[in-house]
Amino acid sequence: MSIRVFILSDHTGITAGSIARALLAQFPQQRFELEEHPFLNSREKVQALAEQIRQLNAMAQPPLVFSSFVDGDVRALLKETCGDRLFDIFEAFTPTLEHLIGEAASPVTGQLHGIQNRGLYSARIKALDYAMLHDDGSITRNYAKADVILIGVSRSGKTPTCLYLALHNGLSAANYPLIDEDLNGTDLPEILQQFKSKLVALTIDPKQLHRIREQRRPGSRYASPEQCEWEVHQAENLFRRHHIPVINTTAISIEEIAVHITAEIMR
Amino acid sequence: MSIRVFILSDHTGITAGSIARALLAQFPQQRFELEEHPFLNSREKVQALAEQIRQLNAMAQPPLVFSSFVDGDVRALLKETCGDRLFDIFEAFTPTLEHLIGEAASPVTGQLHGIQNRGLYSARIKALDYAMLHDDGSITRNYAKADVILIGVSRSGKTPTCLYLALHNGLSAANYPLIDEDLNGTDLPEILQQFKSKLVALTIDPKQLHRIREQRRPGSRYASPEQCEWEVHQAENLFRRHHIPVINTTAISIEEIAVHITAEIMR
Repeated sequence: MSIRVFILSDHTGITAGSIARALLAQFPQQRFELEEHPFLNSREKVQALAEQIRQLNAMAQPPLVFSSFVDGDVRALLKETCGDRLFDIFEAFTPTLEHLIGEAASPVTGQLHGIQNRGLYSARIKALDYAMLHDDGSITRNYAKADVILIGVSRSGKTPTCLYLALHNGLSAANYPLIDEDLNGTDLPEILQQFKSKLVALTIDPKQLHRIREQRRPGSRYASPEQCEWEVHQAENLFRRHHIPVINTTAISIEEIAVHITAEIMR
Repeated sequence: MSIRVFILSDHTGITAGSIARALLAQFPQQRFELEEHPFLNSREKVQALAEQIRQLNAMAQPPLVFSSFVDGDVRALLKETCGDRLFDIFEAFTPTLEHLIGEAASPVTGQLHGIQNRGLYSARIKALDYAMLHDDGSITRNYAKADVILIGVSRSGKTPTCLYLALHNGLSAANYPLIDEDLNGTDLPEILQQFKSKLVALTIDPKQLHRIREQRRPGSRYASPEQCEWEVHQAENLFRRHHIPVINTTAISIEEIAVHITAEIMR
């Protein structure tokens, strides 16, 4: 039997959802059924959900509730409804923070995933425009403005990573796909040479590259095991020769790649 | 004086970082200096940081520490180092969860932002390919495969939203920019008519649209207040006439738009 999990928020609920998923992942034997209710920005909406939860509390497997509300009254209402089945991030940590900081918390909704920080927000949009313009095979190559330039063979993960870096970190990330012509030589492609300090390389297991490319162009030379093997081999030689930091993307997610890259940039 | 904040994790630290930011946003008077240390995946790395924190504890304003470690020993070490200045999401909630679920938590790192769920992960990558191919002005229009099609005038927020929906929700999101030709008529563009149930419209305050477009093409007809005013007016009429759900993006972030859209799709 699966366990119902409510994620309630006065705003996007993205943080509460992340926390719920992180915590519940510790119980891989269980099946959880997540139900997200964002933007519960009125007392009426919260009360309606509290009523629904109250009825479920009588079941054999009452629901778990993860919530993030800045309004103390709403938190109290939920606490009353859910008891120890309420996982409230603000309730858990805010009192200690208030004590340590020596100041009362101000209940401002939507600070995290909103656009209160207009500067960062427009940086993200700008960075996204940049990433889109400087994606694979783009003719515009204004690398002087890049915060980072990802290089690697086709389908090594450059594009999703660039978009993620733009959306989340506001970084102007360009990407340069290494093609046969680049891989035949021992020099870095000319256009990259003056931006060497901005380069981060992505590599990938040739077998996985083959699988990914097969989905795109089945039976092609591009997708063949030999071609994938050769490209990765040549690319890795190039990275080594020019001391470019390399991230192997075979077994890691976009988020993980992105965190490695931001760490690399900070270094 | 700013307060130093450490974000420590055995994995990406994305969740711990979100929590820290959400909680600290409640103290807008304070200046916080965040320092993220992801991938602390060995006892040595954690100990080195614990040592650094221990030294800072003697300062007038000792650091706050937000952490997410699945390893109980590491958590204990940090607790010993940081005392009540440690905000540990797993420590705070896991014992209650274990009790409620009736099962011990298994310490598996990186469940959340990793690629343990290969199915969802490749759905996200596929969705991203889709979003890139079906972005503004694209010639490929395989709308039958879209989970959602965003429509709106140029620069109303369609592209970033589509990319976000793909990256985060694995949704194949296409977008169709409404141009003068579409806005002159009273019918929906022909290509959209058979996909009406998939349409979600974005709109924006004409003044803000003007500001955004001015940054792109200063002094152009495209960016002029009159043109922006006219486009938004016509577009909103079109949305109303055809009963298309509308999200006003003027004052909200990409994340917020995305959550509104997923709610719209679920309806």
